[in-house]
Amino acid sequence: MQTREDALALDRDDPLAPLRERFALPGDTLYLDGNSLGARPKASAARAQAVIEAEWGRDLIRSWNTAGWFALPRRLGDRLAPLIGAAEGEVVITDTISVNLFKLLSAMLREQARRAPERRVIISERSNFPSDLYIAQGLIAQLDRGYELRLVDDAAELETAIDADCAVAMITHVNYRSGYMHDMAALTHHAQQAGALMLWDLAHSAGAVPVDLNGAMADGAVGCTYKYLNGGPGSPAFTWVPKRHQASFEQPLSGWWSHRAPFAMEPGFAPDASISRFLCGTQPIVSMAMVECGLDIFHETDMGAIRRKSLALADAFIALVESRCAGLELRLVTPREPARRGSQVSFEHPHGYEVMRALIARGVVGDYREPRILRFGFTPLYTRFVDIWDAVEALREVLATEVWRAPEFAARTAVT
Amino acid sequence: MQTREDALALDRDDPLAPLRERFALPGDTLYLDGNSLGARPKASAARAQAVIEAEWGRDLIRSWNTAGWFALPRRLGDRLAPLIGAAEGEVVITDTISVNLFKLLSAMLREQARRAPERRVIISERSNFPSDLYIAQGLIAQLDRGYELRLVDDAAELETAIDADCAVAMITHVNYRSGYMHDMAALTHHAQQAGALMLWDLAHSAGAVPVDLNGAMADGAVGCTYKYLNGGPGSPAFTWVPKRHQASFEQPLSGWWSHRAPFAMEPGFAPDASISRFLCGTQPIVSMAMVECGLDIFHETDMGAIRRKSLALADAFIALVESRCAGLELRLVTPREPARRGSQVSFEHPHGYEVMRALIARGVVGDYREPRILRFGFTPLYTRFVDIWDAVEALREVLATEVWRAPEFAARTAVT
Repeated sequence: MQTREDALALDRDDPLAPLRERFALPGDTLYLDGNSLGARPKASAARAQAVIEAEWGRDLIRSWNTAGWFALPRRLGDRLAPLIGAAEGEVVITDTISVNLFKLLSAMLREQARRAPERRVIISERSNFPSDLYIAQGLIAQLDRGYELRLVDDAAELETAIDADCAVAMITHVNYRSGYMHDMAALTHHAQQAGALMLWDLAHSAGAVPVDLNGAMADGAVGCTYKYLNGGPGSPAFTWVPKRHQASFEQPLSGWWSHRAPFAMEPGFAPDASISRFLCGTQPIVSMAMVECGLDIFHETDMGAIRRKSLALADAFIALVESRCAGLELRLVTPREPARRGSQVSFEHPHGYEVMRALIARGVVGDYREPRILRFGFTPLYTRFVDIWDAVEALREVLATEVWRAPEFAARTAVT
Repeated sequence: MQTREDALALDRDDPLAPLRERFALPGDTLYLDGNSLGARPKASAARAQAVIEAEWGRDLIRSWNTAGWFALPRRLGDRLAPLIGAAEGEVVITDTISVNLFKLLSAMLREQARRAPERRVIISERSNFPSDLYIAQGLIAQLDRGYELRLVDDAAELETAIDADCAVAMITHVNYRSGYMHDMAALTHHAQQAGALMLWDLAHSAGAVPVDLNGAMADGAVGCTYKYLNGGPGSPAFTWVPKRHQASFEQPLSGWWSHRAPFAMEPGFAPDASISRFLCGTQPIVSMAMVECGLDIFHETDMGAIRRKSLALADAFIALVESRCAGLELRLVTPREPARRGSQVSFEHPHGYEVMRALIARGVVGDYREPRILRFGFTPLYTRFVDIWDAVEALREVLATEVWRAPEFAARTAVT
């Protein structure tokens, strides 16, 4: 891709190009932040209106049955399952990723307390998304039984760190900052050989890269629907537990939705035998219903096609940045090796925060992550090759003109 | 109220009558189930559309700041606060009631483990909403340190049950089935005198009856926004923690939203000093935003006026049922004393399930709760006196004609 015309030609040949029409995208924005908040499927507005006006407004309480609200966490879980290599009846859409991680990590520690009570260490990475680490720390403090969260500083250390003390390896498949992607099958195999349970966080994987949880024989996973899956702001998260663990994994957030007979209204808790035991309480139906609009679009293609385009977009982006922005202090943080990266590319710049603010002011929306990281997400359902070209041109101008030094780009405010 | 004309006259004189216009109510339904799912504020459709099309669709990730998404859990908590006698900065809207109960009960047990470690009993009622009991059971099993959930069978036994072994009294203010309402101030005082912490579940209280948490000096509360507060199906719940406990209560679901600097992305957890420490992860923004539409309507009146009409509706309903349905096997379950009941009235009938199904088939929507309970909720923002008249007439006809014996009303399906 040497010219903008090359980019336009690639778009013309792109088999995924027609799917961009399924999204409502603002005309003045070049959006490369779908790894933080996915773009809006056009269908979501009408779907929400139907839930609000007909299901809630007209049918009221009856909609729990007639509109299938009760079934949503499992039905949408089943629709998501093929994207992550899960089987029917193994996924629920519910709660937030942090709450789901608490449930699953609790269940795994409890399982290990039965199997191998001497194992008291949770292994993770210091570079993991902090909320995952905070959840582990919160659980450890609550249990107060000598559990320890041990963090490695380099992915290469993981295999030796997962040793005979390790109860659970809690790893995020694709790193939120660097875009580094672990080898799920290899690390799962290693962890299990070492006697640990393997818990994957798929926040930056589901809908971004092909995932095969059952192929890898993983022990559990959580993930997000509001990034690559385009479910809407804060749409409910998901939990995957393979069939072989469902009857034994016990999670402590045992609300009525996890009971085997929620409407019997018995005072004693008895967990459902299925994945439903990972539910807890009543879910936000409007936000939940829109998750389906995002999933619908994925069902028109497959993760193989999405991955091919994702890598092509990222390769083009890296090559263009390194040629056209040469000498402008950008350093690639994401691995070059395709098998080791997700669907984002991160560059470090000494003034990354200000540079990203200046870029956003020109309508090129990526995001910034501490420290000094410019993050660009590629979402093949709606990102075009010409967007890559234009984004790199904007980045080059921002850096070459040093417009990012303007005072308006210096003030720090929270950006998710 | 002797005639339908009397009911219409009461509606003409009702100062709350104009607020009914703020709700979208189906023409063919007489809705007495706002205690399960509140009716839809008309404003909610446009509010959701604005969030979906403008905030999500057009402004995308920027809306976390520009549309105030980050601030929603606290800003809406502050708007809810006056309805429950809470102060600014004491309430967050977040997660589900069961998840919030887990957080708060965990925090209270931990507080007692420091103050009075010999206290190992949670006191509640066998008739409490089962999910609350399940959450306590799940937490106790997880902690595995000899905690016990002790259930009383009669509210009159509570005061003696809350003794020197009691760590936390976990009580639902208004019973979901009977409509019985506890004396919040008296029971809180008693529990604290006995050395226990007092946790209130306000699922059937918030927006239903005047509540004064700070006046009662309670220790913590959780509640629901999708019933009397009309937030929408499964809209996020709330947690109240008084200022005096915020710095010491530690909850284990310590996701990034509870961190004092969530965007510093530090690997170590440090809780925020404020009510924000009771947040966990990213919330479902569309479902959350609609909570405000319900709260807006409450801010046009006050809980005193709502309570006066609620009691008048319920008194009229009880009197009419007992006169017009005399001899038809209905038995009042809800206390007659106004101070001891919430905003619902329950009657027992030997064939309650079938009777309610037959009633719903005629467009009179109450609900059924095991065993044998017909439950009717009164929501003064949109329930009219003429609705009471018409509902009792429909009930009388269903019972007198025994239409409920038709086979179509016998099959059991889940009804929330």
